[in-house]
Amino acid sequence: MAETVPTSTTGAETVIERVTGGLTAPAGFQAGGAYAGIRSYGPEPRLDIGLLVSESPCVTVGLFTTNAVVGEALSWTRERLRSADATRVRALVANSGNANTWTGEQGARDTLSMAELTAKRLNVMPVEVLVGSTGVIGRPLPMDLIERGIAEVELGADEAASTAFARAILTTDTRPKQTARRLHTGESIYTVGGAAKGSGMIHPDLATMFAFLTTDAPVTPGWLETTLRAVSADSFEMLDVDMDSSTCDMVIALANGHADGKPIDESHPAASALTTAFAEVATELARELARDGEGARTLIEVTVDGAADEHEARLAARTIASSPLVKTMVAGRDPNWGRIAMAAGRSGARIDQARTRIWIAGLPVFQSGSPAATPEAELRAAMEAPEVRIRADLGIGTSSATAWGCDLTEEYIRINATYTT
Amino acid sequence: MAETVPTSTTGAETVIERVTGGLTAPAGFQAGGAYAGIRSYGPEPRLDIGLLVSESPCVTVGLFTTNAVVGEALSWTRERLRSADATRVRALVANSGNANTWTGEQGARDTLSMAELTAKRLNVMPVEVLVGSTGVIGRPLPMDLIERGIAEVELGADEAASTAFARAILTTDTRPKQTARRLHTGESIYTVGGAAKGSGMIHPDLATMFAFLTTDAPVTPGWLETTLRAVSADSFEMLDVDMDSSTCDMVIALANGHADGKPIDESHPAASALTTAFAEVATELARELARDGEGARTLIEVTVDGAADEHEARLAARTIASSPLVKTMVAGRDPNWGRIAMAAGRSGARIDQARTRIWIAGLPVFQSGSPAATPEAELRAAMEAPEVRIRADLGIGTSSATAWGCDLTEEYIRINATYTT
Repeated sequence: MAETVPTSTTGAETVIERVTGGLTAPAGFQAGGAYAGIRSYGPEPRLDIGLLVSESPCVTVGLFTTNAVVGEALSWTRERLRSADATRVRALVANSGNANTWTGEQGARDTLSMAELTAKRLNVMPVEVLVGSTGVIGRPLPMDLIERGIAEVELGADEAASTAFARAILTTDTRPKQTARRLHTGESIYTVGGAAKGSGMIHPDLATMFAFLTTDAPVTPGWLETTLRAVSADSFEMLDVDMDSSTCDMVIALANGHADGKPIDESHPAASALTTAFAEVATELARELARDGEGARTLIEVTVDGAADEHEARLAARTIASSPLVKTMVAGRDPNWGRIAMAAGRSGARIDQARTRIWIAGLPVFQSGSPAATPEAELRAAMEAPEVRIRADLGIGTSSATAWGCDLTEEYIRINATYTT
Repeated sequence: MAETVPTSTTGAETVIERVTGGLTAPAGFQAGGAYAGIRSYGPEPRLDIGLLVSESPCVTVGLFTTNAVVGEALSWTRERLRSADATRVRALVANSGNANTWTGEQGARDTLSMAELTAKRLNVMPVEVLVGSTGVIGRPLPMDLIERGIAEVELGADEAASTAFARAILTTDTRPKQTARRLHTGESIYTVGGAAKGSGMIHPDLATMFAFLTTDAPVTPGWLETTLRAVSADSFEMLDVDMDSSTCDMVIALANGHADGKPIDESHPAASALTTAFAEVATELARELARDGEGARTLIEVTVDGAADEHEARLAARTIASSPLVKTMVAGRDPNWGRIAMAAGRSGARIDQARTRIWIAGLPVFQSGSPAATPEAELRAAMEAPEVRIRADLGIGTSSATAWGCDLTEEYIRINATYTT
């Protein structure tokens, strides 16, 4: 299952390698997906209910949308992770096609039913089951279909099972997103897996998508919380598709401790390397979410250097990556760098015109107060790539940040003008 | 010139009527526009340089973009209005097609040249001339074309002259925007005129477009400043096209005092009615800017009621009006009210699900915790109108606000993917 090329090394004895298997790459996790018929939109039948199961109780932490309007599944799951239930999570059930948001008291009962049906099938307690729902807002869940779907999910620990779960959580995404990393420390082997879905209502508030991460490493709840926050800050929170933010979305990390050793906290020798493994999984998922943003043909990676501080670097990178005019400029392969300056300027970051430098696809377009001499034809050709990198040095300080977005195409309009129909 | 139907009355003795003539409706103003050939984009030749001239010195105030990246013309004009020059403004020269932004020292010299050329033609001082430039960022101004354009503008006080100026400042707008109001107080007659241009990079920070207002009323600088800020807060700052904010844009009010009477300040009996006249001009222009937003087919008017306070009402109204998913939903005539709730929820305003009520085009879609029974076909038919009103009562308090936006169509992408080419 392992690819042999290490993606990074974090010390003399540790190696992190990219492995297949997604959520079920770590030991002790099973997953699966089924077609329940929940989605009333979209071109064809598609998996729409997924189960993720751990053989043993998981230390679990979550980050949730900052939207004041939230779905019933989110409320349930957030409540579990705020209580003692957060150290005994056994499963997660998620559906696409219906957000179960603003569905009143019936909606709350339906989320509880999803937990109960899953618990009954797995012979665990309902409070040990997390729930996620994503899709159209304001419609009651079709509970008969969901009940049948939960019963029909085939669980497995192979990549096909993980892929089925990754497919089941998709809304307007065109393909599943999953990845995994395996950390060899010399003493132990830990694996981190992940799956995520976008692809609209994506904005860098806290956790505006589904992203689920699994690990077989034994960890303390405090360390996992700190790590998830730090890793998300540089991955999921640096991602924008359309500046809207969902009512349902969450980033959840489950650690079942199937690997050997004492619980990892900040003093553990493997803590830093395991954080890197989480970061690699999260960054890869964030990039794939941007690449598959609604209607996207191009991944935009924006790196800001020379900012006054990290906060301003992040502001500028996210504002450039989310600017509709930068996004349409990339869609049109138009090296109109003035829009990059405009977006940096409105971000709140300080910027020194005389010292600012801007590159598109590695080619200089503005250098120290003047437009660069790069021929427009050369820039246009470089922008034909499936990934366009934008780099802006604000000329103020030494801080950097990277954000991801996607181009804004006519297909985004087509998708969203007809979403419920 | 006056239409006879009064648009509002503000007391027993005062009448405000809508009049034609735009910027030159007030006495003592002349305007005009010429084709200089500055625009290197767009389908056909179009007026691109405009002059607005007052017979006598004007009390003048301005509001400017909050973008940290600003154009040279904006810097010049802002400097004039921060100094004693603010009470002796005689003219404004504006060009479209080139923003003269991030054009280095040459750009600053070019703005000064525009003021000097205009001053020479009109026999006034350069510091008595305001300058506005809008269009592509980062390209040097074609000063030979601009010099010829300034010389060729034909000035006049009739509606054709005002229209020529209103056309000359357009960028991607499809039509000129101008209006005027005449206030009869019983003792005096004051006129307020205005012209504005959009139609992209429009976001409700301070003054993200060109809007020029004229009046022949005698006013104090302090009163004009207070009035312009208050009026803009409820008009230009409640307007969104695409969440980007321009580097060049400004709202300028010029008062030449040609009408009789002592200077108007807050204690003057006509102050309130004159504020209303300014507000009517500004609101009509803001609505027309939204209606003509890039690619727009539909004006969206969002009224939020029941907010905790005015700040939250404004936040919610602006967030709903600017949400890409609300905008695409209107484009598709899709009454997907969940997106309205989502946008209100992420705005920062408090919202009570159980007491929230939402209407689309006057028809209830969500009432007190539950979807309303309005048939979808009826909603879709109502959304075919050229203006779609959205109303949301957040169920918290008693504050209200209104914002304007436009639908997001495939044409927005086409316009902005090819703007510089």
